[in-house]
Amino acid sequence: MENKFRFAKEIVCQAGVFLKEHLHDDLDVVQKSSPTDLVTQMDQKIQDDLVEKILARYPDDAILAEENDLRHDIADGNVWVIDPIDGTNNFITQQADFAIMLAYFENGQGQFGLIYDVTRDQLFHGGGAFDVYCNDRKLSAFINKPLQAYLIASNASMLEHNHWGLADLSRACLGVRVYGSAGISFGKTLSGGLAAYFSYNWPWDYAAAYVMADKLGFVIQTLDGGQPNFQTKEPIMIAPKCKLGELQEYLRKGKG
Amino acid sequence: MENKFRFAKEIVCQAGVFLKEHLHDDLDVVQKSSPTDLVTQMDQKIQDDLVEKILARYPDDAILAEENDLRHDIADGNVWVIDPIDGTNNFITQQADFAIMLAYFENGQGQFGLIYDVTRDQLFHGGGAFDVYCNDRKLSAFINKPLQAYLIASNASMLEHNHWGLADLSRACLGVRVYGSAGISFGKTLSGGLAAYFSYNWPWDYAAAYVMADKLGFVIQTLDGGQPNFQTKEPIMIAPKCKLGELQEYLRKGKG
Repeated sequence: MENKFRFAKEIVCQAGVFLKEHLHDDLDVVQKSSPTDLVTQMDQKIQDDLVEKILARYPDDAILAEENDLRHDIADGNVWVIDPIDGTNNFITQQADFAIMLAYFENGQGQFGLIYDVTRDQLFHGGGAFDVYCNDRKLSAFINKPLQAYLIASNASMLEHNHWGLADLSRACLGVRVYGSAGISFGKTLSGGLAAYFSYNWPWDYAAAYVMADKLGFVIQTLDGGQPNFQTKEPIMIAPKCKLGELQEYLRKGKG
Repeated sequence: MENKFRFAKEIVCQAGVFLKEHLHDDLDVVQKSSPTDLVTQMDQKIQDDLVEKILARYPDDAILAEENDLRHDIADGNVWVIDPIDGTNNFITQQADFAIMLAYFENGQGQFGLIYDVTRDQLFHGGGAFDVYCNDRKLSAFINKPLQAYLIASNASMLEHNHWGLADLSRACLGVRVYGSAGISFGKTLSGGLAAYFSYNWPWDYAAAYVMADKLGFVIQTLDGGQPNFQTKEPIMIAPKCKLGELQEYLRKGKG
């Protein structure tokens, strides 16, 4: 597993170097499901390169990825989960606040996850048998201070409509942020800068953080308190296990 | 003025070096007007150092600054406007996404402004007689694409309550972000990554961007379309001059 983890870090960093070199290239922007759901040739290129490298080295492994309908069942064998550019709208408009994410599962068990915040050059990595680091700094587990001492992050639409009571929750916290990238939000949470993050996420949005969360005292679950299904887009949160009771009071009230 | 501008860049960069060296120090956090309005010994220290250096070099100049009630009239003589740490809550909880801001006015006329995003090491500087740069990169003026191609940034509370129609406006754009720092939001706008930014701001929040905005096709005004008063906290926006008409339709409708 250590070789596989080292390989994963290498190919994610290589992808990051490529993106940094091509950060100011002209982009071919294409709409997917809506005018705000965009993809570029760089998303395609990064995913194609990662898939090619993984299958060249591990030809029996399978892929669950954002682009091209690569949707292998997470519970079936050795599965790599890829989000080539998370935060594509930030990437297109700001050339910042986007992440490359990669996670590796064996028969549904997370082995390691990687979130690379390319322009800040911060690689979050670990989970499974590995401690969780940001670059060379081992991350500490969540510290149980009052909610008032912590920021949270949210999807803008959930906040606007107070879905699941998120606007109410945000007023019980130090404040709320909207970054437009699951990878950026998960990275800030895992490294202690946010107590929790709430959004509608696909499996490739949360897979890497899902593997790293447990070691740091966090859990990723649906806003109903269930296991993410690793198949569809669901309302998802990462939250500290020791705060789940307190958070779920807001979520329950807000839902009903 | 070139010497004064060079001096300003030097003292802001020195303050940034100090903050980076002390980024993981224990903080003495004190509440100001509310549980989410916080200040630390670092805000005090950075402001005190900047004031001391400015007055040692320019003893006849005056100061308008966030801490210690230094509130010189912007229209009266040579005035330095200081925000020692903008985004204090981000600084406290994330050690990221905060900025040091400094602006210089003579008899109410902006001469130059500086916004230093410390952890990204991005110094936005210029305005008045100077071109506007991010570090060594000269910034281009706003490019007039449809709103749908641009992100905007907002204060969380304005967005939640659709004050001034901001939630409606955000749906006409590519999306909305909440960064919790005027400096970070202005920097992203001036460098083309956001079409506009809306919040309740004090003079030290907007003074530096106010000086830089004009050269890049932007204007900073109140949400009623007036001049900021450089005295109180007001609802403020930075927006491209060529988009003002379109934006004001949302603001008027939203105001009711």
